[in-house]
Amino acid sequence: MIDENKNKIVISDDQFVFIPLGGATGIGMNFFAYGYKGKWLIIDCGLGFPGENLPGVECLLPDPSFLAERKKDIVGLVITHAHEDHIGAIGYLWHDLQCSIYCTPFANELVESKLNEMGLLGRADTCLVKKGDVINLGPFEIEFISMNHSLPEPNALAIRTAEGVVIHTGDWRLDLDPILGQAPDTEALKALGDKGVLALVCDSTNASGEKSKATEADVRDTLVRLVKQFPDVHIAIGCFASNVARMESIVYAAQEVGREVCLLGRSLWRIDAAARATGYFNDMPEFLSEDEALDKPRGSVLFICTGSQGEPYSALNNLAATTPNKGSVYFGADDVVIFSSRVIPGNEKAISLLQKRLSSKGIKIITDKDDLVHVSGHYAGDDLEKMYQLVRPKIALPVHGETLELTYHSKVARKCGVPFVFCLEDGEVLALNGEEPEVLGEVPAGILAVDGKQIIPLNAEVIKKRRKMMDEGSAVLTLVLNKEGQVLGQPQLSTFGLLASDSADNDEILARITQAMASIPPEKLSDDLFINETMRHTIRQFLSEKYGKKPLMDIHLIRI
Amino acid sequence: MIDENKNKIVISDDQFVFIPLGGATGIGMNFFAYGYKGKWLIIDCGLGFPGENLPGVECLLPDPSFLAERKKDIVGLVITHAHEDHIGAIGYLWHDLQCSIYCTPFANELVESKLNEMGLLGRADTCLVKKGDVINLGPFEIEFISMNHSLPEPNALAIRTAEGVVIHTGDWRLDLDPILGQAPDTEALKALGDKGVLALVCDSTNASGEKSKATEADVRDTLVRLVKQFPDVHIAIGCFASNVARMESIVYAAQEVGREVCLLGRSLWRIDAAARATGYFNDMPEFLSEDEALDKPRGSVLFICTGSQGEPYSALNNLAATTPNKGSVYFGADDVVIFSSRVIPGNEKAISLLQKRLSSKGIKIITDKDDLVHVSGHYAGDDLEKMYQLVRPKIALPVHGETLELTYHSKVARKCGVPFVFCLEDGEVLALNGEEPEVLGEVPAGILAVDGKQIIPLNAEVIKKRRKMMDEGSAVLTLVLNKEGQVLGQPQLSTFGLLASDSADNDEILARITQAMASIPPEKLSDDLFINETMRHTIRQFLSEKYGKKPLMDIHLIRI
Repeated sequence: MIDENKNKIVISDDQFVFIPLGGATGIGMNFFAYGYKGKWLIIDCGLGFPGENLPGVECLLPDPSFLAERKKDIVGLVITHAHEDHIGAIGYLWHDLQCSIYCTPFANELVESKLNEMGLLGRADTCLVKKGDVINLGPFEIEFISMNHSLPEPNALAIRTAEGVVIHTGDWRLDLDPILGQAPDTEALKALGDKGVLALVCDSTNASGEKSKATEADVRDTLVRLVKQFPDVHIAIGCFASNVARMESIVYAAQEVGREVCLLGRSLWRIDAAARATGYFNDMPEFLSEDEALDKPRGSVLFICTGSQGEPYSALNNLAATTPNKGSVYFGADDVVIFSSRVIPGNEKAISLLQKRLSSKGIKIITDKDDLVHVSGHYAGDDLEKMYQLVRPKIALPVHGETLELTYHSKVARKCGVPFVFCLEDGEVLALNGEEPEVLGEVPAGILAVDGKQIIPLNAEVIKKRRKMMDEGSAVLTLVLNKEGQVLGQPQLSTFGLLASDSADNDEILARITQAMASIPPEKLSDDLFINETMRHTIRQFLSEKYGKKPLMDIHLIRI
Repeated sequence: MIDENKNKIVISDDQFVFIPLGGATGIGMNFFAYGYKGKWLIIDCGLGFPGENLPGVECLLPDPSFLAERKKDIVGLVITHAHEDHIGAIGYLWHDLQCSIYCTPFANELVESKLNEMGLLGRADTCLVKKGDVINLGPFEIEFISMNHSLPEPNALAIRTAEGVVIHTGDWRLDLDPILGQAPDTEALKALGDKGVLALVCDSTNASGEKSKATEADVRDTLVRLVKQFPDVHIAIGCFASNVARMESIVYAAQEVGREVCLLGRSLWRIDAAARATGYFNDMPEFLSEDEALDKPRGSVLFICTGSQGEPYSALNNLAATTPNKGSVYFGADDVVIFSSRVIPGNEKAISLLQKRLSSKGIKIITDKDDLVHVSGHYAGDDLEKMYQLVRPKIALPVHGETLELTYHSKVARKCGVPFVFCLEDGEVLALNGEEPEVLGEVPAGILAVDGKQIIPLNAEVIKKRRKMMDEGSAVLTLVLNKEGQVLGQPQLSTFGLLASDSADNDEILARITQAMASIPPEKLSDDLFINETMRHTIRQFLSEKYGKKPLMDIHLIRI
């Protein structure tokens, strides 16, 4: 997997370099390295979600091989915030990095629960950082600057070296009157800008134009209004479990009308535990489990549900399948489901199917098309310009966005007068100091796939074969011959995803196999390769003519 | 597949019934039956496109079994217009229907080319209808009413019986100053409304709110402006081949700046042939093939391309892959690609990937987010209300839309004072005449999948297995034993989509098989079922522990 040439790049001790190793282009897998004086600082270690062209793959990871070879020189992994695309790969990649992990208390709860799942708790060294803290890791001094996002304790990082300071934003928005946490510390950003910032490494998620500057407070107001509007029915609100701010807003709305809150979905309970362990949610009553909610009268409970993206076995899809009197919460005619989330591209069909199922039971559906029930946790309107006006970097490094977002982001940076703008690919090495920033070359970077219990390269043969099989099926023929080439026992054929199990075509193919064997010239009866090819051809011809399929195929030719 | 009870519904001779057999809920597969006096009239016969959860399936068809059993009583298949979701299933289902096909010249060209592909030309009887024609088919009199859509000759049908008249709209918009064809015949609709319309069966595609009333003429103006803005570079415009109006607009823009037009993509040439054969495009010069365009200087050709949805082997993806000097048209830095189309839900990722590939070559991309380069061929703004104000039916039958669209459509119908509104499921039978319309019950309806050369039910075992295989892989073990249970020859194992072909785990599994055989108690050595289960368990345990996978599995146990 490793291209040897890519490792030959020379980085001198006095060069301060930035290398995106995941999350430079595209969404997910945030994984960034800063190098200086032979030491390496890592920011974030997130996972990505596979598309439907990757059958069987659970999640994607950034390839850590460049850093794995420099393990002893890694001074630490610093986490900006606790979302999966920033912390989700830690458990998978820790063996390759084996460094201390620095994060704030809320992120720490979730990181430790991940390490625990992997049996790494106690082996990986996690270090708590409080907001506003400054930590020293080798030649790097890192200051945590409070930002605003959809979960507790999002931070931008000011990374100082003798060569200058880089601001690495993580995910952020400029909600100056946030529900959750405090307003972003624009003072600190401005103060850094006043002194001079070498580079700004900045999220691009909403760069192409989230125009609405509606806030979480506005969403909260809408939810209160809606909950009041439907007093005597069940109400479920679907949201991302990672959207802690939204959970708070929903609970607020429930309290306004005296409803208790029930959580449906494991990931919501996990977030709840992390939040309560770190001092959030403490003024809220304990949430109800589904069992506890069962006996409560209609209109007295508000349900928060996972599955707003139409995920198959999630809470909302379960709601759509409930029937009365089955020992689970039943949603039916006149009940209400609010989708307090956006549609993530790729999930349109699954969401539409879920909404169809809910509608067909007479459940009223409210989405962000109908009312202000969702705002993005990322910046909006002119926030990005404001960021550049505060920080005034010499170099802009838009990251974490599709091509379109990166292009828009670059335009904003140029418009704000930033002299140098680079949209790097993962693996590209940029020397930040010096007269002008310079791309020094490329180091190994790529994507790994978590496939069952294995971690394999994204282009692995098994994934390619699975993709072929899902269109064409697979087939195996077993043929036992003696040394003279006479067939012993009955040939057997297995096909997967081709013939119905009771299809007469199975016998038809075996009959053709017998015919084909009979037609093999005597001098070829000892030629395994020839027989193998003849069998393949016979099966392929039948399946291609009758079924239009070319399956993956093996012949088990056994000589006794 | 046929539920016998569903066939037992009794429809009396004096009942005028409407049965959607495809396309009632959802997009695609338009296939509607009207019954009266024991005779059946079919409107449209379209196909649907499978999602990624249907591996290997090329397209979807409505199940024709209800009509196939009444073949001799079918008076004809009448086509509203030539789009795939209205004519695409004709070739596949003709054997089940075997009736005459009535359509206007442009649709006829495309229907005949489909029949030709299936070897049915000359066997299926196609009858030309001109716009404004009235045809008599058994107890039905059908009037063709010109509408406006994105292709030539779209028609609404007024279906008259002694019990009243139904207007069946097909796809439509009310562009009163269209580029292609004439303005919709609102006079005819109003005249029918004045006399009294029993029911309106109406498309729901844009019911939830395409607000912009921009027209194809506006798109044409934008294209002219854009083409003038980039005089000396290659320009490619991606659009749906079925959007004949758009092709005209693009050619108009090319002529404004003196560019020749080259078509890239087979389906564009097919539409071009049908259009020219029926008197369209005749004032346009012949289009260039790719070979002819090769020698033309940059800035002198405008390319129309298929693949605006990111389809893998389409023209736009080919453009993204071109390199200079390869004997094909090369697009590179500063060239322009315009996506003159919308994003069809489900295609977001493929389109984003295509745009990424184009951008990375320095190609400038313009989409409908940047400029007015696309309008829908379906109604917008208050057009739907206007339709109800013209027609004033007793019964509204919203069809062809997802739940959300159908719900919005129903609201509009009620708001316009329609007394009865029904959103039927495919297979539901509605008696239109009588005091009040009445759902009589259900007949067999469903979806078939074109899988290679076979047509199989959507829930067929083979598709389910393929879906499992694509996540979990498949495995076959061959074990040859003598009557005493001794292993003869070498056991062989094939796995697909699980182990790399050079994986040592293949040998490891075979070693465990040998171990497992050795541990079978002597009295069980003649028990094929026991041995089979032991082998399955051995393989499954290894793959589950090490790979986290549970493949489809077969054991070929052969006794010699």
